[in-house]
Amino acid sequence: MKLTFYRYDLKLKHTFTISRSSRDIATVVIVELDHEGIVGLGEASPSRRYGETIETVEAFLTKLDLARFADPFQLDTILDYVDTLETENTSAKAAVDIALHDWIGKKLNLPLHKYWGLDRNNAPMTSFTIGIDTPEVIERKVREAEPYPLLKIKLGGSNDEEIMRTIRGVTRKTLRVDANEGWKTKEVAVEKIKWLEQEGVEFVEQPMPAVDLAGTAWVRERVNLPLIADENSIRLHDVPKLQGVFDGINIKLMKCTGLREAIRMVHTARACELKIMTGCMIESSVAISAAAQFSPMIDYADLDGAELTSNDPFDGVKIVDGRLVLPDRPGIGVRRRV
Amino acid sequence: MKLTFYRYDLKLKHTFTISRSSRDIATVVIVELDHEGIVGLGEASPSRRYGETIETVEAFLTKLDLARFADPFQLDTILDYVDTLETENTSAKAAVDIALHDWIGKKLNLPLHKYWGLDRNNAPMTSFTIGIDTPEVIERKVREAEPYPLLKIKLGGSNDEEIMRTIRGVTRKTLRVDANEGWKTKEVAVEKIKWLEQEGVEFVEQPMPAVDLAGTAWVRERVNLPLIADENSIRLHDVPKLQGVFDGINIKLMKCTGLREAIRMVHTARACELKIMTGCMIESSVAISAAAQFSPMIDYADLDGAELTSNDPFDGVKIVDGRLVLPDRPGIGVRRRV
Repeated sequence: MKLTFYRYDLKLKHTFTISRSSRDIATVVIVELDHEGIVGLGEASPSRRYGETIETVEAFLTKLDLARFADPFQLDTILDYVDTLETENTSAKAAVDIALHDWIGKKLNLPLHKYWGLDRNNAPMTSFTIGIDTPEVIERKVREAEPYPLLKIKLGGSNDEEIMRTIRGVTRKTLRVDANEGWKTKEVAVEKIKWLEQEGVEFVEQPMPAVDLAGTAWVRERVNLPLIADENSIRLHDVPKLQGVFDGINIKLMKCTGLREAIRMVHTARACELKIMTGCMIESSVAISAAAQFSPMIDYADLDGAELTSNDPFDGVKIVDGRLVLPDRPGIGVRRRV
Repeated sequence: MKLTFYRYDLKLKHTFTISRSSRDIATVVIVELDHEGIVGLGEASPSRRYGETIETVEAFLTKLDLARFADPFQLDTILDYVDTLETENTSAKAAVDIALHDWIGKKLNLPLHKYWGLDRNNAPMTSFTIGIDTPEVIERKVREAEPYPLLKIKLGGSNDEEIMRTIRGVTRKTLRVDANEGWKTKEVAVEKIKWLEQEGVEFVEQPMPAVDLAGTAWVRERVNLPLIADENSIRLHDVPKLQGVFDGINIKLMKCTGLREAIRMVHTARACELKIMTGCMIESSVAISAAAQFSPMIDYADLDGAELTSNDPFDGVKIVDGRLVLPDRPGIGVRRRV
């Protein structure tokens, strides 16, 4: 089987700011896995938070030798090779995993959700993300987000109260809050979450730095809102350790090396009685549609990554009245826009 | 889709005795799921230990209404319905689960191991079980088990030392010990396991009653052999609770409701750093071959249930020099013997 790849600059509709960074363009790597005349599509959207750049993704993909494998169905063997070739490089690994799954779905003429025994009618609502910004821009973004019944807002910067006041001046929608490790002490985190409990918030994602798991456990004892792990929930082995510290986990393909591990995390989280959220980076419809394929198994979706862009070259999962609508096409269900 | 079923009496080559029961015949229920001209096979081998009899299996299957479902690919929806129709009834549920998976494999013309992305060359060795018996019979059984490099012996009765002396008089093979909850106090369990550490034993399965999880944890602190949970490891939600108490789990389709949950348990056990064993009841090649399909993911197999019988009506997974050899046929890979 043959793997090729190319860069693509996703343009953001608005400058996107979270507690640690800000940007206008997100460069991703699109992967094509060609075998027996069928092309599986994958995507890597690297994040510096997890030690990746476009260059590390390209270096990793260049180093891979998939020609040694004769059958894409050998997922376990191929993905073990990919995962053990080097540590980290999780988004580069995810690109290969997505392309292999897309190939299998196309070969079997089955959408992945059907291949996994799932019903696409059970796909959940997705939230739409409002980044950190000035009151004027936030107000405009919230108005533009009118079709989305659920908003996720980024806090953890210096103007949390101002952001919340601005949003609540425009809408009474249910809000999900993502602090992206922004509250640096447990006392601040408790104070912020207690305040958010009065503001119509559904849950809080990653209130404190991932290194301070004990601090998060301390916070959880003192607040009522569910806490969802993001930077603390990277891969499969993290999941059991989060029992008693968080109420749920956010699974992202770009952190966990792809669909195969994501599904393992879903089952483990269920066993551990943790809620399951699926999030994304800024991604095209390739990676977003891949994640949407297993969304009928999860509780909370935050798969708006492609919606934040203005030049997505692919057409895949749709968001209709906030709900994920999975295409009835094989594999990840994506086709190139014409 | 249409579900039919019938009883079948599996005859045992030898009377089979474990710490709590003894028998010459094992009656199972074979299930056939017919849809679009394809027939998926399943099997229930009920165990009184888990509250089931042939009658409860038949009553449960009679109560099921699968005609309401139009598509066997809808595993999640169908199996949620099956699982929530009544509690317990795990082997009856497993029969339906196996038949659905067999149907899907046949529809796609894929063996289940390939459907799951596994390599059948990674299927493990299986042990062969020697039940509790008189020294004369045990000696004969061990000699008959000559083709099997790994033996599993049943202890936990009144003559553990005699059994071990008899076996060690005949063979130096690696032994796995299954006490089936037979050692009733933690002190006795520690004493027995310390003794077994000197006898070339690889691990000990379920030393103490399942109700005494604290006792098992106490034992584990004091012994060196790995402890594998069987009666303590029924379904998905049991797995995380066994961390720190056992070193591994024994997954059986008849306890856990089938392949779908078994695979969820495999991933959860990996996340929890527990070893994974797959065992069986007395079963025909239908249920044994189903379990063998996911065996490339596990550490220890004990899938000799069909080998203990003399009139298995099906032909499926083979055991060659102790190793499981998965057929390259679709679904569970089973066909009726002619």
